[in-house]
Amino acid sequence: MNLNVENILVVGLGMIGSSIAFAAKSKGINVNGFDLNDDVLKKAIDENIIDATIGSIEEINTNQIDLIILAVPPKQTLELFNKLDYLWNTKITITDTSSVKNHIKLKGVDNIVLSHPIAGSDKSGINSLDKNLFTEKKNILCNPFDANEDHQKRVENFWVNALNMRVEMMTVAEHDLIFAMTSHLPHLVSYALIDSIRTSNLGVKDNSGGGLKEFLRLSGSNAEMWRDIFMLNRVDLIKALAGMQVSLNNLLELMTETKQIPDIFSHDEMLKNELKEIKSFKEDKF
Amino acid sequence: MNLNVENILVVGLGMIGSSIAFAAKSKGINVNGFDLNDDVLKKAIDENIIDATIGSIEEINTNQIDLIILAVPPKQTLELFNKLDYLWNTKITITDTSSVKNHIKLKGVDNIVLSHPIAGSDKSGINSLDKNLFTEKKNILCNPFDANEDHQKRVENFWVNALNMRVEMMTVAEHDLIFAMTSHLPHLVSYALIDSIRTSNLGVKDNSGGGLKEFLRLSGSNAEMWRDIFMLNRVDLIKALAGMQVSLNNLLELMTETKQIPDIFSHDEMLKNELKEIKSFKEDKF
Repeated sequence: MNLNVENILVVGLGMIGSSIAFAAKSKGINVNGFDLNDDVLKKAIDENIIDATIGSIEEINTNQIDLIILAVPPKQTLELFNKLDYLWNTKITITDTSSVKNHIKLKGVDNIVLSHPIAGSDKSGINSLDKNLFTEKKNILCNPFDANEDHQKRVENFWVNALNMRVEMMTVAEHDLIFAMTSHLPHLVSYALIDSIRTSNLGVKDNSGGGLKEFLRLSGSNAEMWRDIFMLNRVDLIKALAGMQVSLNNLLELMTETKQIPDIFSHDEMLKNELKEIKSFKEDKF
Repeated sequence: MNLNVENILVVGLGMIGSSIAFAAKSKGINVNGFDLNDDVLKKAIDENIIDATIGSIEEINTNQIDLIILAVPPKQTLELFNKLDYLWNTKITITDTSSVKNHIKLKGVDNIVLSHPIAGSDKSGINSLDKNLFTEKKNILCNPFDANEDHQKRVENFWVNALNMRVEMMTVAEHDLIFAMTSHLPHLVSYALIDSIRTSNLGVKDNSGGGLKEFLRLSGSNAEMWRDIFMLNRVDLIKALAGMQVSLNNLLELMTETKQIPDIFSHDEMLKNELKEIKSFKEDKF
């Protein structure tokens, strides 16, 4: 099996899919694209984002494609993996781009390797195509179905060579918990915070300086994709939230001077030290 | 009384104070500066950030200064207003830069007007001086002590003409609640979220893409200032937090399908619609 990737099919030409397609095409790879929306597909061809399209997702020729990349929301990713079962255990390699993985449960397949190319943006759709969206970013690979080593190698090669990404292996459990904490929880909290401003009917107008900016950006993310992520990763997300609530409670108990502390300390001093420690942790680790 | 400002005294030459001093100096205003830290004061003079210093905060000559600007953390702001009581009801105008106002309770003074120049940064100290930090930003003025109109006009003139800021009047109650929601709560949540990652001992390493960035920035803010803000604005902050928890709970109930909803709807669909509505609110209002 040739581990190089010469012909790919990108399914779903939103921001993620079209950015991958266009970056791969600029590296000389032959890029087929597919999208259920005909206008999107037409645009992708007209603007040379892809080389060609395929007739139907149900009749993919294993001699014409090396690698299929699914770039659709998390729930559809599972549906598509199942729809493509006629390609399981063939020489085609199949991967995805879903930000959550634990729901992808498949049995008896040796050519599916999971990918999560990490790049943050609140934008979506083919009009947000960015050729360099993933350049020098990280891509987490998971191999929960024990795919054949060649397929894994091929997925790695593609991300590293065609997209200039770094690749790291993780288990699905590690992946979903880490991203619950570092990405899904910040999004959930941002949606909740902006919603609380909405329901308060307080005239915040342009008084949003000093901290709200990123919360606003995150709460403007694609609703369908984030609904899927919140639903599908809810167990880890609630675990992450519980951890945040413990930390929040600690700060609240210091703020309200209700925490039991030794007499020789003051709540005021302890709160300052706590904030300083968080700051140092942040500076050391990130 | 001449409503123009020709001679100012900036007390506290951290990022805020030194940025105000330097911007005012570039507009031709004579700038006196004071800081308890001698190294900071020396640097301010050596690098021409201020024109001169004063001998002592207890012997300010009312003929040499038009306007005093306190640029110290919120708690010290109140202490300094009280320390300067020998200047109350004189022709000098006094203002501040504190992000929280409700603790500033004074009686029988007609020349103190409160200011809150809005500019977000996690930096601090004179080395973070930025001449344009406040340019074209907004400054909230509060007049809780019914200051003489001339003093209010003078403070307004200074921010508008010397710093190129927009000015808006608010009551202290409005100010503290709005900024609890749009600034203090985002900071508190960011500290809590980063703390929960710290205490989890999870190796998040460089897996911080997709949403954590601003939370990291906010949790690196000046610990003393934010301790003061959290402590002094805790009532409004807890009010804002309660609102966020209600919104969070609504999302959680949809995510976990525990919310009571009519049979004709699905939790899945309702969660997506909820996220869409938050997104539209954000796009309309901000």
